[in-house]
Amino acid sequence: VNVLIVYAHPEPTSFNGALYALAREHLEARGHAVETSDLYAMGFNPVPGYADFDRPDDTAVFRIQVEQRKAAEDGSFAAALAAEQAKLARADALVFQFPLWWFGLPAILKGWIDRVFAFGWAYSRNERFDSGRFRGKRALVSVTTGSPAVRFAEGSLFAPMEALLYPFTVGTLNYVGIDVLPPFVAYGVGRVSDAERRDYLTAFRSRLDGIATETPLPFHSLSRFPDPLGETIVPG
Amino acid sequence: VNVLIVYAHPEPTSFNGALYALAREHLEARGHAVETSDLYAMGFNPVPGYADFDRPDDTAVFRIQVEQRKAAEDGSFAAALAAEQAKLARADALVFQFPLWWFGLPAILKGWIDRVFAFGWAYSRNERFDSGRFRGKRALVSVTTGSPAVRFAEGSLFAPMEALLYPFTVGTLNYVGIDVLPPFVAYGVGRVSDAERRDYLTAFRSRLDGIATETPLPFHSLSRFPDPLGETIVPG
Repeated sequence: VNVLIVYAHPEPTSFNGALYALAREHLEARGHAVETSDLYAMGFNPVPGYADFDRPDDTAVFRIQVEQRKAAEDGSFAAALAAEQAKLARADALVFQFPLWWFGLPAILKGWIDRVFAFGWAYSRNERFDSGRFRGKRALVSVTTGSPAVRFAEGSLFAPMEALLYPFTVGTLNYVGIDVLPPFVAYGVGRVSDAERRDYLTAFRSRLDGIATETPLPFHSLSRFPDPLGETIVPG
Repeated sequence: VNVLIVYAHPEPTSFNGALYALAREHLEARGHAVETSDLYAMGFNPVPGYADFDRPDDTAVFRIQVEQRKAAEDGSFAAALAAEQAKLARADALVFQFPLWWFGLPAILKGWIDRVFAFGWAYSRNERFDSGRFRGKRALVSVTTGSPAVRFAEGSLFAPMEALLYPFTVGTLNYVGIDVLPPFVAYGVGRVSDAERRDYLTAFRSRLDGIATETPLPFHSLSRFPDPLGETIVPG
């Protein structure tokens, strides 16, 4: 299958870098067609603005969704953005590799979402969740933490990883129709032994082997929820 | 009191821009000393890297926390970063004004946190939560949404705002010791009537009046949680 790996760590020799290299090499060795977005290496700009649009609709007042919809309609996204969208469109499966920073996505990855998942291109009012444009695609979210797993247990100091990743897994990926596999989490990567890090790599390899076949998490279905304010929802 | 307003919307004529202008003017009229970080207007770069550090410790392998700790120790943060840190250090109260994008912070604000809340400067192993460096400071988080409030009700399509803001309110602000007031949320700002938008401004004005006195949310206290792996915690 076609796989896009989106990778967001500034240092290639980091453990994130090792997981990224493993994903790329292992998926290629298994015969998948792999594309990558190495966001730091690309110098990816995570801040949306007029530079996203070749022919802005209104150069006086910046309305991001208006500009995004127009660019989606007339194909006028800036080249760097259109290239990311093309990779996403081609992908059957996505791998996201990043460290958890301040309980969430590093800014460079959050901005990749803010810019690439454009209104009118990635979703519209009637194309979300069940009826999302990217139904049929699937994503494996692979995240590292500095703190040990016990900190993320139910009722512990932080919060369960599922809750921390919810804005990304449900609010972003499910939102545009993408199925999400159970996340792969390497906890406390700066604290554990080399043997434990090798165990993480082994476990990640077997998760990569299941990327096209593993059962995704229950999909957050729009049709299960009441329709407020007359929003028109057409379930897919 | 000294107030720092951190504002993250690209368009001054937006409703976020109106809330930002109101906060600035109203707090000044009430006699507070107001500083601002208008992140888009500043062209703030949200991506950490070597440019954050005047005298990097290791120019071959980028270890962000190592570099941050060194810069905190010898005062070698880059000028743009040091200026933000100085504003934060001076502030008794913070106001964050931003739109909820993909269930979280816009990348430009997330990156302000990623870079400004540096290890060794904003926190260290023994200076977190109860013993955080910024105990005594307080924050009012003011957020707008495109979707109506009913979408954020318990058991509804999205998730309660408290859960969506948790990585920021608890995982970031409480983490460094800052008390968090109940968030101010203007739901569905693109859908509501002008009268409802005026009601939001009126409600926000009264929240600003309480910035120095309002009772914060229960503080997420480190000492309530077990200490895993012998982490040394010195409660404040």
